[in-house]
Amino acid sequence: MTEPVPMAELWRGGMLESRHLGHAVICDEKGAIIDAWGDPQAVIFPRSSCKMLQALPLLESGAADAAGLSEAQLAFACASHQGAAIHTDMARRWLADLGLGDADLRCGVQEPSDRAERDRLIRAEEGACQVHNNCSGKHCGFLTLAQHMGAGPEYVELDHPVQQAVKAAFEEVTGEQSPGHGIDGCSAPNFATSVAGLARSMAFFAAANPDGDTRNRAAARLTRAMAARPELVAGEGRACTELMRAMGGKVAIKTGAEAVFVAILPEKRRGIALKIVDGGTRGAEAAICALLVREGVLDPNHPATLKRLDAVQRNWRGREVGIFRKAEGFA
Amino acid sequence: MTEPVPMAELWRGGMLESRHLGHAVICDEKGAIIDAWGDPQAVIFPRSSCKMLQALPLLESGAADAAGLSEAQLAFACASHQGAAIHTDMARRWLADLGLGDADLRCGVQEPSDRAERDRLIRAEEGACQVHNNCSGKHCGFLTLAQHMGAGPEYVELDHPVQQAVKAAFEEVTGEQSPGHGIDGCSAPNFATSVAGLARSMAFFAAANPDGDTRNRAAARLTRAMAARPELVAGEGRACTELMRAMGGKVAIKTGAEAVFVAILPEKRRGIALKIVDGGTRGAEAAICALLVREGVLDPNHPATLKRLDAVQRNWRGREVGIFRKAEGFA
Repeated sequence: MTEPVPMAELWRGGMLESRHLGHAVICDEKGAIIDAWGDPQAVIFPRSSCKMLQALPLLESGAADAAGLSEAQLAFACASHQGAAIHTDMARRWLADLGLGDADLRCGVQEPSDRAERDRLIRAEEGACQVHNNCSGKHCGFLTLAQHMGAGPEYVELDHPVQQAVKAAFEEVTGEQSPGHGIDGCSAPNFATSVAGLARSMAFFAAANPDGDTRNRAAARLTRAMAARPELVAGEGRACTELMRAMGGKVAIKTGAEAVFVAILPEKRRGIALKIVDGGTRGAEAAICALLVREGVLDPNHPATLKRLDAVQRNWRGREVGIFRKAEGFA
Repeated sequence: MTEPVPMAELWRGGMLESRHLGHAVICDEKGAIIDAWGDPQAVIFPRSSCKMLQALPLLESGAADAAGLSEAQLAFACASHQGAAIHTDMARRWLADLGLGDADLRCGVQEPSDRAERDRLIRAEEGACQVHNNCSGKHCGFLTLAQHMGAGPEYVELDHPVQQAVKAAFEEVTGEQSPGHGIDGCSAPNFATSVAGLARSMAFFAAANPDGDTRNRAAARLTRAMAARPELVAGEGRACTELMRAMGGKVAIKTGAEAVFVAILPEKRRGIALKIVDGGTRGAEAAICALLVREGVLDPNHPATLKRLDAVQRNWRGREVGIFRKAEGFA
């Protein structure tokens, strides 16, 4: 087993202060590994980085078209959003279209990280709802599929037809039998895979033919939706949103909890997956930036990049105190 | 150079999800290394974990007694507090006693992490002040010393008499010439040292004689103040506060940014210092708990411990999804 390698570092006063190690893989459209750092076979939980895989059955089943889902809704089904008004509005409308409400969600209540919405709730002395949960879009997708299947309301249970369909799609597209699952923050099963398997699945999305078979069409539509509606996939100020905008809608990327990041590069027909072993989000954001710059799809001098890679660190008085940068030898 | 070793791990669904590596040292009263994990000579920035070292000149100079500082104020001078009302009240009174105000601080404005105070500011549409900065207590101490010395107002500059006194005390107590400094979040210089040097300084505090020389008396008073007033050193819900309470005031501990943690064990006349290399706070909290349990001063089954070590992870619906625990072989 190969050890994880240094990917991102915090420097202060000209000295190394902190360092993040990780595993990363770039796959081509055949699922072959083009490049790897650390251990490509390291088993990880993709967490929210695999939301586009979890959304495949929604499209493949015909449920999305039967419900008349828009491109925005498809992007939202792949989102880890911050509970801003645009997100909660979409979730509420979607639930209403299904004849359902907040109580039908099974993601749990999460306080919004969107500042405006957080402050509004505090001022109004209102509690957060399940629609604020960062996964509420994915759960609206699960509910749409469950209704279409005529399946029961406990759609996050492992043996529910929705999750069984997700598992089948996940294993087929990663090209691996999942070695097991954990329960995610939103109560849905999260299937483990290798970093290479996750990168392979992203390469499949990258090369998916929009006029191909059911799965190809589903993957191509989801990629297009994410890249076209970055504000729905995360939110203002967030890495996914800002970096997808910086790449002009040509690349879809997605973060996952515990420092996972993936990228779908349709023009290059490549997929990327990485995991920072310590779970530190700043490390994953810097590392995905470094790989996207290396692939020639992200401008290293774009403000969205410089917020995360070669990022000047300032203190409470705005003084420059350090830099967060790529580790030497990585990417 | 010895590599850092696994110290804390997140497990989900029976599989390892994330892992934190670090360096740790336990020193005895002579400054000898009793036990070490990783590289004792690894150079780190102690960040806020060395606030009791930064407070030594305040006492040794006679400034603290001349200003009639209380035990509570000495604890507050060593604090990384969360800007709760008890903290901002103390900072404002202290500044007023000096004939100064918020604008004389040089720590910068930081939003309080204390929820009640944060919500109060949002409801009142008030901005945060410098007294909310987690370091405002330390800066009140710096100002007290600067006044006593008759020195100028820019007390965070490296060549200011306050910082020169801090540097001298820091190097003497760590037993090392600092290889350099960085600028901290609060604009004060932060002197680098080895993990062993930081542990040695904590052992000096642990063994300090309350009836000894000026430095011994100062160190003993600061340790006693921190252990006696844990609510002023951090705040409700925070690791330093909860764990010091759990140890019944017999041990003083202090966190620092980027995952540093130190402990002063007076009864055992030992000092501990550790750094998680990725800067992840949860890793440092679990690791210091593990070492304090190992030293026999912290109950492994105390709720304050179980929040951080062998800590059950729950999702947004309160379901158990994993555990955060000590890495096998550590401590």
